[in-house]
Amino acid sequence: MKSSIIALIAIATLAVAVGSTIAVNAHADEQAAAFVTQIPSGYRDWRLISVAHEEGSLHSLGAVLGNDVAITAYREKKLPYPDGTIIAALHYSHTPSAENNQVFGQAQSFVPGTPTNIQFMVKDSAKYAATGGWGFAHFTPDGKHGDSAFMKTCFPCHEKAKATDLVFTHYAP
Amino acid sequence: MKSSIIALIAIATLAVAVGSTIAVNAHADEQAAAFVTQIPSGYRDWRLISVAHEEGSLHSLGAVLGNDVAITAYREKKLPYPDGTIIAALHYSHTPSAENNQVFGQAQSFVPGTPTNIQFMVKDSAKYAATGGWGFAHFTPDGKHGDSAFMKTCFPCHEKAKATDLVFTHYAP
Repeated sequence: MKSSIIALIAIATLAVAVGSTIAVNAHADEQAAAFVTQIPSGYRDWRLISVAHEEGSLHSLGAVLGNDVAITAYREKKLPYPDGTIIAALHYSHTPSAENNQVFGQAQSFVPGTPTNIQFMVKDSAKYAATGGWGFAHFTPDGKHGDSAFMKTCFPCHEKAKATDLVFTHYAP
Repeated sequence: MKSSIIALIAIATLAVAVGSTIAVNAHADEQAAAFVTQIPSGYRDWRLISVAHEEGSLHSLGAVLGNDVAITAYREKKLPYPDGTIIAALHYSHTPSAENNQVFGQAQSFVPGTPTNIQFMVKDSAKYAATGGWGFAHFTPDGKHGDSAFMKTCFPCHEKAKATDLVFTHYAP
């Protein structure tokens, strides 16, 4: 009898331990699943959503492009964005154009300089359920994706744009 | 004999007068021909060439798009641009985004505000021979094209970009 109880306790303990391990793994998978690690193909041919200029520590000039699903959703003001939506943000350093300024006769012209990064938001409400249905991606110009610590900063910030389904960029007419 | 001479002089004078009129009309036509007065259809679906930020008296944030001929020429670094090239510059006011700045916790974000104008360069080396093969267009957001005095300022400025076939915008990778 006593040995049966010990066996039961051992089994229960094992079950809890296994359960915890599964929970931890599931959490890690959720986090990992939220990061897109492949550059979506053909993005440079996508249509324009808008442009953006960030100062502060970014000093970036960028273009925001969308695949066909994204462009249709934006134009039809469809919220939340449907599965299959991909939004690409192409960032470059915000760089004065000496060439243009010479023509204008004054310092007024800024153009995209060195590419700094490309970021994507991919909508898949099942796969990325843990992060509002969006998978996030960040790639350096040489194609390396952002590390896990960096990628964990995407969702908490985008989550603040709840009214527009976590997307900051509005469509430029 | 005398009347024949007078008749000849009269004919010659008439010929010179007609010739001058043709020359004047031809010049006026050349000027008029350099201005594109129809908005090229479908331009908002064209692919991205680059983005631009102008300060000074412009305060504009813009996107530069190209039709298929333009995109191919840019990617293949083909100069001069072939006939059929159309480049579109969509300009908006350079506007702080209160919405984004609230999320960032500081004033750093600028987005396209009110559309200010759309400009086009259309390559047709025969039709626009007088202006380097380019026809220029400027439209207000309500579709009115720039007046003749304004349009005469396009070519003298673009002419300064001779090394890149009168085009200022470089392709953003």
